[in-house]
Amino acid sequence: MKKMFFSLAVGALALSVGVAAQAQVTAEDMVKFRQSGYTFMSWNMGKIKAQAVDGTVPYNQEQVAAAANVIAAIANSGMGALYSPATLGETGWKETRLLPAFFEEQDKVREVAVNFVQQANALQEIAAMGDQAEIAAQFDTLSQACRACHDDFRAK
Amino acid sequence: MKKMFFSLAVGALALSVGVAAQAQVTAEDMVKFRQSGYTFMSWNMGKIKAQAVDGTVPYNQEQVAAAANVIAAIANSGMGALYSPATLGETGWKETRLLPAFFEEQDKVREVAVNFVQQANALQEIAAMGDQAEIAAQFDTLSQACRACHDDFRAK
Repeated sequence: MKKMFFSLAVGALALSVGVAAQAQVTAEDMVKFRQSGYTFMSWNMGKIKAQAVDGTVPYNQEQVAAAANVIAAIANSGMGALYSPATLGETGWKETRLLPAFFEEQDKVREVAVNFVQQANALQEIAAMGDQAEIAAQFDTLSQACRACHDDFRAK
Repeated sequence: MKKMFFSLAVGALALSVGVAAQAQVTAEDMVKFRQSGYTFMSWNMGKIKAQAVDGTVPYNQEQVAAAANVIAAIANSGMGALYSPATLGETGWKETRLLPAFFEEQDKVREVAVNFVQQANALQEIAAMGDQAEIAAQFDTLSQACRACHDDFRAK
């Protein structure tokens, strides 16, 4: 049952990563790893936003590409394996905001997960090319992909 | 002064990433981002260890390569920008264990940082090839590179 959920949730692009990559990860550590991954992505999203969207920091091609690499690598790391129903209400670095709906709406979860990975991969490709306007546009698309999960599966 | 430290600490391979990538990151957030990056790397090191070193989980080429991609991307993300003297004693997710020596032994820090990035890049390349024995050997080399920093610049 748990296994079935994982393969459904992780989605087509990342189907082979995610299931039982590592033995014996506690629910607390699953939440800690999730929160670490998303927090580290947010640092890198922040760098891209500052340099390619808001212009509050001078644009640096190498930094933006490196930040997009991080986001894509984390998106493709099989984080589906960190989502077990046992993690609901669990505290990692802080209490998880994951909602039970995540385990009840598998089609929706698969859809947002697949889209998230696709948009992160697209940002990585576009950031490597270095066109600032295209990066800003794809940053926006990826942000929406992030938000799709927050809206439905994360407590406010 | 702070800028000089950053360029020294980040090292040759990552010289252009790291300095002022983002405006206005608080010391607390710097520590949080650092701890998130290292914690997420440790999840991915754990997967490689389980599958390619200890054999406690069946070897999966795609998972191991994805894990090595994460480690390399994080290593190349310019984390030097997250090391300010203001972060000493600061609490991110938890209190930092960073020692003042980090800001006093810049040549040593540069050396361990450059080696860490090189060994993470090497693991990424080797993991993409898929030879399990070579992956295990490079995993060991990278672990030593991690430990070099822990030994000298992190409280026990």
